[in-house]
Amino acid sequence: MANRRWILRTRPEGDISEGDLELIEVAIPDLDEGEILVRNIYLSVDPTNRIWMSDIDAYMPPVEVGEPMRGRTWGTVIKSRHEGFRAGDVVTGGLIWEEYSVLRHAEAVPMNLGLPLEAFTSVLGPAGMTAFWGLSDIGKPRPGETLVVSAAAGATGSVAGQIGKIMGCRVVGVAGGSLKCGYVTEQLGFDACVDHRAGNLEEQLRQACPEGIDVDFENVGGDVMDAVLGMVNNHARVVLCGLISTYNREGDWWSPRRFRNLLFRRVSMQGLIITDYFPRFAEALPVMADWVGQGRISYRVDVVEGITNAPRALARIFDGNNMGKQLVKLSPAPSDIQP
Amino acid sequence: MANRRWILRTRPEGDISEGDLELIEVAIPDLDEGEILVRNIYLSVDPTNRIWMSDIDAYMPPVEVGEPMRGRTWGTVIKSRHEGFRAGDVVTGGLIWEEYSVLRHAEAVPMNLGLPLEAFTSVLGPAGMTAFWGLSDIGKPRPGETLVVSAAAGATGSVAGQIGKIMGCRVVGVAGGSLKCGYVTEQLGFDACVDHRAGNLEEQLRQACPEGIDVDFENVGGDVMDAVLGMVNNHARVVLCGLISTYNREGDWWSPRRFRNLLFRRVSMQGLIITDYFPRFAEALPVMADWVGQGRISYRVDVVEGITNAPRALARIFDGNNMGKQLVKLSPAPSDIQP
Repeated sequence: MANRRWILRTRPEGDISEGDLELIEVAIPDLDEGEILVRNIYLSVDPTNRIWMSDIDAYMPPVEVGEPMRGRTWGTVIKSRHEGFRAGDVVTGGLIWEEYSVLRHAEAVPMNLGLPLEAFTSVLGPAGMTAFWGLSDIGKPRPGETLVVSAAAGATGSVAGQIGKIMGCRVVGVAGGSLKCGYVTEQLGFDACVDHRAGNLEEQLRQACPEGIDVDFENVGGDVMDAVLGMVNNHARVVLCGLISTYNREGDWWSPRRFRNLLFRRVSMQGLIITDYFPRFAEALPVMADWVGQGRISYRVDVVEGITNAPRALARIFDGNNMGKQLVKLSPAPSDIQP
Repeated sequence: MANRRWILRTRPEGDISEGDLELIEVAIPDLDEGEILVRNIYLSVDPTNRIWMSDIDAYMPPVEVGEPMRGRTWGTVIKSRHEGFRAGDVVTGGLIWEEYSVLRHAEAVPMNLGLPLEAFTSVLGPAGMTAFWGLSDIGKPRPGETLVVSAAAGATGSVAGQIGKIMGCRVVGVAGGSLKCGYVTEQLGFDACVDHRAGNLEEQLRQACPEGIDVDFENVGGDVMDAVLGMVNNHARVVLCGLISTYNREGDWWSPRRFRNLLFRRVSMQGLIITDYFPRFAEALPVMADWVGQGRISYRVDVVEGITNAPRALARIFDGNNMGKQLVKLSPAPSDIQP
């Protein structure tokens, strides 16, 4: 039995090219005492993968050339040399793009599945937690305020907007294409969705936000954020969660044209990296799980099959083709085998 | 007896030119019931004057062409038709570049001078209050942290740094020229001062901040702020108080090159306009007056004589020639006549 994993071979310049990553076969080592062997079910691919591929001074060290690509996995224990885990347990903790992971017991977090595993990869995983903490700790929307969420059909944006609705806001999404915008308004219940591919972004946004913008949950940057910063109200809050429009650029990336509005309108903006909130996931999980269980928050996973397609799954995000949480499926999920 | 006041004649393009402002003579009207006549002693000139001269969507409406220039004055009541004021009282409340102001009684704030009037124009006026609230409400420095203050020899920066010292921070100023830097370290007690005119700004700043930057009290923008954003620590705070390096530019002004560091390092940044804190001045005043009285905060006014020189006083700020609070003196101050 062999394991396949993706290795970073060259740092991308601009868009990721074939050849930047290579799929290799490696032997699965025997387990030491205290270790478990996990057959991975899902691999998370995320915008931040692109950041990790560049040698820039980011929020954590880059993946080194020649080293495995970094990304969270969820999987089934198939061998255990620790009393806390048994074959069949579903865990997360792997951080490599690979089919099988050997984990120290302390690295593995058991999933107590009252909800489908797919929920834990998305709305109850880092993507959804980002939405929860970004709004509750930084955006702090009040009932009646207008919340704009960019990348509204994405893993985090879709959840941020739905939490905004629960909090009593007018919620306006920004997404690319009418299919996504339809999903955002009809399935997710946003009040409006602006299609940034349809042109006339500022005019669309103005119509969707007749009372200006109080909170921006920013995942995109670039023209979308410039449009938002042109329309923020006094004392608006910006959750600076991502700048995906710029991750494929070299140099200093993008700078907001309307930066001065942060001063004039006394905007507060704060960067959010979800690792800061890992210690607080346990606070948010029961709240979020209730909302999901009650159907107040829906989620969607966008699944690409097979480890060989992991780079393609990542490209989907940068091409704007994913709807919901982008995953790569590596082996059968519990939902495939339960009756 | 006539009054002289400055009128905005044309909106400056770039630097302010002679002819953008015109000094005119106007009659002093008779007082209505409830009004007072004030002979102004000091006129405040501030970076924000330049913002008000441009027709941009700023934090308050611009001065209209043909209208008087806006700016705070402190003066002596010389006639009163309100029982709350008597000739000789010193008040503030005038908001026009002029020698005499007619104020409604409700517009006039009496100065209860336990300290020199100059203190109330600077450290205890809007400039010093900006420093106080910017730090206590936004920057929130903790003892041992590194605070960087740009325009460190200016009206607000000089106070912000001294408050930072009281709060137990390592305080590093940024100022232009060795004279100012000497003032900042020797008179104001900053731990270090970086001379942005001496070249090699980033290297100087790195040496002055061996443990990175935790709080940035930003008055300048441009290269200075870019250097700071390159060096901020995780969870740093930026008090976005001014962007004077860009006020003379047209269009969208400056955009920070290192914007992405706000995301990566989870920086929080908040715009500060002191008008938001007018209702809270009374909270801060006794604290600040104590510090001034105890000599823990020193202040300096930079006085240009005569209403005719008001535009020159403003130019001093943009040329970087002022040290401390820039004022125009229009008539004798209490300190001139007291024994």
